[in-house]
Amino acid sequence: MAVAEPTIRKPLPFDPARLDALLDEAGIDVLIATSKHNVQYLLGGYRFFFFETMDAIGTTRYLPALIYRKGKPENAAYIGCAMETFERELGRFWPPNLDLGTTGSVASMEQAVAHIRKLGDGIRRIGVESAFLPADAEGVLRRELSNCEIVDAVLPLERLRARKTPEEIDLLRQASERVVDAMLATLRQIKPGMAKHEIAETLRREEVSRGLVFDYLLHTVGTSLNRAPGSDQRIAAGDILSLDSGGNYKGYIGDLCRMGILGEPDAELEDLLGFIEEVQQATRSPVRPGARGGDIIDLGERMVRESEHAKYTHYMAHGMGLVSHEAPRLMNLPRLSYAAYDADRPLEAGMVISIETTMQHPSRGFIKLEDTVIVTDTGHEGLGDSGRGWNRAG
Amino acid sequence: MAVAEPTIRKPLPFDPARLDALLDEAGIDVLIATSKHNVQYLLGGYRFFFFETMDAIGTTRYLPALIYRKGKPENAAYIGCAMETFERELGRFWPPNLDLGTTGSVASMEQAVAHIRKLGDGIRRIGVESAFLPADAEGVLRRELSNCEIVDAVLPLERLRARKTPEEIDLLRQASERVVDAMLATLRQIKPGMAKHEIAETLRREEVSRGLVFDYLLHTVGTSLNRAPGSDQRIAAGDILSLDSGGNYKGYIGDLCRMGILGEPDAELEDLLGFIEEVQQATRSPVRPGARGGDIIDLGERMVRESEHAKYTHYMAHGMGLVSHEAPRLMNLPRLSYAAYDADRPLEAGMVISIETTMQHPSRGFIKLEDTVIVTDTGHEGLGDSGRGWNRAG
Repeated sequence: MAVAEPTIRKPLPFDPARLDALLDEAGIDVLIATSKHNVQYLLGGYRFFFFETMDAIGTTRYLPALIYRKGKPENAAYIGCAMETFERELGRFWPPNLDLGTTGSVASMEQAVAHIRKLGDGIRRIGVESAFLPADAEGVLRRELSNCEIVDAVLPLERLRARKTPEEIDLLRQASERVVDAMLATLRQIKPGMAKHEIAETLRREEVSRGLVFDYLLHTVGTSLNRAPGSDQRIAAGDILSLDSGGNYKGYIGDLCRMGILGEPDAELEDLLGFIEEVQQATRSPVRPGARGGDIIDLGERMVRESEHAKYTHYMAHGMGLVSHEAPRLMNLPRLSYAAYDADRPLEAGMVISIETTMQHPSRGFIKLEDTVIVTDTGHEGLGDSGRGWNRAG
Repeated sequence: MAVAEPTIRKPLPFDPARLDALLDEAGIDVLIATSKHNVQYLLGGYRFFFFETMDAIGTTRYLPALIYRKGKPENAAYIGCAMETFERELGRFWPPNLDLGTTGSVASMEQAVAHIRKLGDGIRRIGVESAFLPADAEGVLRRELSNCEIVDAVLPLERLRARKTPEEIDLLRQASERVVDAMLATLRQIKPGMAKHEIAETLRREEVSRGLVFDYLLHTVGTSLNRAPGSDQRIAAGDILSLDSGGNYKGYIGDLCRMGILGEPDAELEDLLGFIEEVQQATRSPVRPGARGGDIIDLGERMVRESEHAKYTHYMAHGMGLVSHEAPRLMNLPRLSYAAYDADRPLEAGMVISIETTMQHPSRGFIKLEDTVIVTDTGHEGLGDSGRGWNRAG
């Protein structure tokens, strides 16, 4: 693989000046993206179908790599496996340099090193995704490029993805609407005596039949607070149930929670879900470009704290897109390296926020709504906003 | 998390004496398994539902870890995320030590280190899965356990999985039969003018409606040799088509290829598929305990080489199970670290072999059969053996 002539076959799917500025700020000369989500993003929506659910093969794993030299998109390279030649024939790739002959984490990174060596002098810092670069692949970089410093590129890449394009918003809208439609279709099929695992399997099929990839279901029935979907617990007449599911449409995640009941809700259940809906609506109302992201959290947490439901209710909001928790990062979730990173920054048009109010009620069970709200040019809009009350099951 | 009293709550899902012997041979004192497939295997079929398709969250990823000290199953630990407490409540875990409070690759490995430090002296070599351990997680091990050597444990783990239990064979049988059923159901729905991506989506739904997770489809139509499923190419009357799909049932992979035709095959097509079937049947016939694995390959390669189809036909056989190419490794596929590892070893009852004869015919198109054959106590048996001829589509 020689470095190609400086022509790019397609318009880039992202703004290279913005990526260059983010890499510059992080002191990164060359980026090597290896996660599913960032490879997809940088390749403009491309997801290689073969290893979508299972990347192990032989004694190693599939490892795609997108190599981007700051300021030189014409030198970009994509390293994939032999089966991706079918996709090259279909014109799926913009990078001028393609190596589609490798399978395996070490083999991929050896090709990455070979490409980087052709990029000339002045490369001091290489940005990688440390949580998505296998140890053996990183070992190749450290051995072969021992004059370079290896640093993490996760934050600049997350920042690059934070404002969604209209095309991305449309995919998120499709994902959200289809997840909710699948939930409502599932609720209609529920009968007394159905086990949780049967309800879960029904939702999985309903999501897939709508063109989604089913990611997960968190699921409660009756007064239990156990959200594992694969249990034998059976639903009985009068039981409530929660369906909190993620499904993706071409990689973009729909993640919503809706409530159902096999019967009629009493006044207390109406009040509990009514309070949750009040918090959900109140905290989306300040969403607009320029608003401080942390104000959403402050309002939601205050409403919960000042309510009679404070002890068993939790409010959360976070960015989402190709990753289920991403920028804007509004809360302090240290294990996910959130650390209120974006709470003091203004929201921007094109950002997407998941808002969730969760009640683990000690006697009535698990009650929750989760919504997806986009920041529009003038305010906000909810995606997949239907089915917000007590949906009658059966 | 303190090291628990030396009691194990459940019978182990694998033979600990065999694992101990394999670790001993590899000089490994402590094993840290972090791949989906090996964590599932060591936990006896457990797959955490939430991160099944997408492990990214926040700026990191979900990383489960199963820690096993050689000879001391009573000291085993499993490290997972907070949502796995629902699974603990359902009694899913055998390891006496559980830490279900972390999310993130670094956080998981910090907990792994904390556990290993409690295991006492004499730990010199730690076995990891280098292709399935993120670089940042490995960094924690190297920093915190700098007195230990870190080595790869992939081969002993693969060897442990090579002979399947009757329960595993049953899951593979379910997977294989359901994949073929889904293919036959898909073929019945094909009409002239359908695009490849519509056929692919039909197969995906048919697999999911049979309880499978759809993994992938390699798919050709007409005389094209391009196997990408997501294209706009449309099928016409008289066209042949190939469906080579993987789908898993509870993690166990069904991977088969069947042929269809929108019309009637002519004599040449019957001959071509007839030759492939002849190779497939001839090379499964020597499969039995004690047979040399490499003899299967030798026979298949000789039959192809001595035929008139040698130039465009390829024979391959490989083990499969939780991973689509695993032990017994019968061929020299260096990128997957195959290197004829098992060709000279005797086959053992419980091994599972995928056998594939692939024709890239220059004028008639892509024609292939792929079968799954298990080594039984007395010989062999094919799983999902139906639909082997020219299946009429539409």
